[in-house]
Amino acid sequence: MSRFYRDKRVLVTGGAGFIGSNLAIRLTKLGASVHVVDSLAPRFGASLTNLDPYRDEMQISLEDVRDQDALGKIVPGVDLIFSLAGQVSHLDSMQDPHGDLEINCESQLSLLECCRHGNPQSTIVFASTRQLYGRPQYVPVDEDHPLHPVDVNGINKLAAEMYYTLYQEVYGMQTVSLRLTNTYGPRMDLKTGRKGFVGVFLDRALKGQEIELFGDGSQRRDFNYIDDVCDALLLAGETPSLQGGVFNLGARETYSLREFAEMLRQFSVFEIRCVPFPPDRKAIDIGDYAGNFDRFAAASGWNPQVGLEEGLRRTVEYFRQQPDDRSQ
Amino acid sequence: MSRFYRDKRVLVTGGAGFIGSNLAIRLTKLGASVHVVDSLAPRFGASLTNLDPYRDEMQISLEDVRDQDALGKIVPGVDLIFSLAGQVSHLDSMQDPHGDLEINCESQLSLLECCRHGNPQSTIVFASTRQLYGRPQYVPVDEDHPLHPVDVNGINKLAAEMYYTLYQEVYGMQTVSLRLTNTYGPRMDLKTGRKGFVGVFLDRALKGQEIELFGDGSQRRDFNYIDDVCDALLLAGETPSLQGGVFNLGARETYSLREFAEMLRQFSVFEIRCVPFPPDRKAIDIGDYAGNFDRFAAASGWNPQVGLEEGLRRTVEYFRQQPDDRSQ
Repeated sequence: MSRFYRDKRVLVTGGAGFIGSNLAIRLTKLGASVHVVDSLAPRFGASLTNLDPYRDEMQISLEDVRDQDALGKIVPGVDLIFSLAGQVSHLDSMQDPHGDLEINCESQLSLLECCRHGNPQSTIVFASTRQLYGRPQYVPVDEDHPLHPVDVNGINKLAAEMYYTLYQEVYGMQTVSLRLTNTYGPRMDLKTGRKGFVGVFLDRALKGQEIELFGDGSQRRDFNYIDDVCDALLLAGETPSLQGGVFNLGARETYSLREFAEMLRQFSVFEIRCVPFPPDRKAIDIGDYAGNFDRFAAASGWNPQVGLEEGLRRTVEYFRQQPDDRSQ
Repeated sequence: MSRFYRDKRVLVTGGAGFIGSNLAIRLTKLGASVHVVDSLAPRFGASLTNLDPYRDEMQISLEDVRDQDALGKIVPGVDLIFSLAGQVSHLDSMQDPHGDLEINCESQLSLLECCRHGNPQSTIVFASTRQLYGRPQYVPVDEDHPLHPVDVNGINKLAAEMYYTLYQEVYGMQTVSLRLTNTYGPRMDLKTGRKGFVGVFLDRALKGQEIELFGDGSQRRDFNYIDDVCDALLLAGETPSLQGGVFNLGARETYSLREFAEMLRQFSVFEIRCVPFPPDRKAIDIGDYAGNFDRFAAASGWNPQVGLEEGLRRTVEYFRQQPDDRSQ
């Protein structure tokens, strides 16, 4: 992996966000020439400080991925693209479905059209989501599981993923999609409270505030530490045999939300309380989820290295070392 | 059926197009108060003359379904909505993917949002498409067949259909989607040549011009006569137990494109010639297709009545009776 990315010109959309910034830093360390595009939209929680102390070694464009003209000028100059910009809040997608459509469908189509017309040889890795499956009919969920999104976000991400597959099939472009599950770690957005329970729980644990579990907290999830997700993204970009494919990420162990919250108690003192499921959350809750990542493991050699306890330890350490304006 | 629609206030989007105009006329004859919305976009082949001689008995708004403000004024005053407006050209969707996204995704989301906020009690019937399945893995294709669209149009229609299902599941709205296959009959668009082979073949047959078959013309299809499709749409709107569902239409017999062309020779004199598949068409061709409509037949009692030969006879007769400016 280390050699492949040396001197490669790499575009990371959403590069100031959680996953994007971690990936951009990894790429910079690997010797890639990194171009970050990010609109820094306040509610998405991105921040250029996420890129410190490597910010000066990257090219940074404060553009919106919905702006096809801006993308069209950047895309021709790169070898690889990691398409990570997106709206990830399920609840927001229900309240502003058109906004979600613009960011998650329209902008992906724009990026693909830019590549088709301006750089059809580039490789594009798309960050998709386990949300496409909706409520699992069985676990662990493999890639052949029926697709039945339970919110507008899941539908729009599905359409976007299908664009990527289609452009590979019809135009021979080099695209690959990874369906991410719960990703956590340093630089994740703890401020906006809009990105699911992991960020909310971590934020409250760090502040010593009570954590509320919806229902009895028995819903199970799988969790990937950010470094493992960056490994997966990098493998996806450098492995030609994956092109055109769609692959789950996942973890070997699952934990209930209650177990997740209790594990955080190793690092902080706070209360846990069960509250009734809010109706708007219940309507789009998926129950238990675990992803089967055998296909990606076999095709790429990926093997997640960091267990939840160790990952949470590193994450808590990271945020405790941040100045106050970042860690809360 | 006849009694259900009497005095019902019914909105038909795309009501000046092929299926929309036939349905609007049927509804008018059934005693419904029909409101047609159509932008009359030239390349979609819609025409107010399609509504003759019932045009004066309908309310007609020349609005674009992408205009949520306009829709928002109309939607609160209706009992049922038939959402038929759409871009249906597969090839156009590849050449102008953003245009297809606007019409087939964004406008459906706008309509649903208008209903959610302004008329959540209305029933909405959405015209979906067999194109969602892509190249069949087996025939006849049932609703559990994997969804793998082979063009941007199929992806956007899939997203739209999923919005309808989602809004039923999350908000309890009354939505139902029918996946249409090849529909043909009076008032179909023979002018633009953009809507698949049926219109192209009919147009050329009526003019006595040579019909070109791509490849050997052996690809098989199922065909529904427009009156049967209108029956299906009407049943979908009046049968509460269908709400939230997604159903195939289809026919009991399939015909190859060659057989279809040869059947047209009963009504006209023309040559048939095989030509190599154009690459841009081959890339999005789906091979053989037949829809399994058992689920819809069982749930609604629908049973297509008009076989292909009889349907083509009626269609040819219709177009032969039209003034020259309509039949070609």
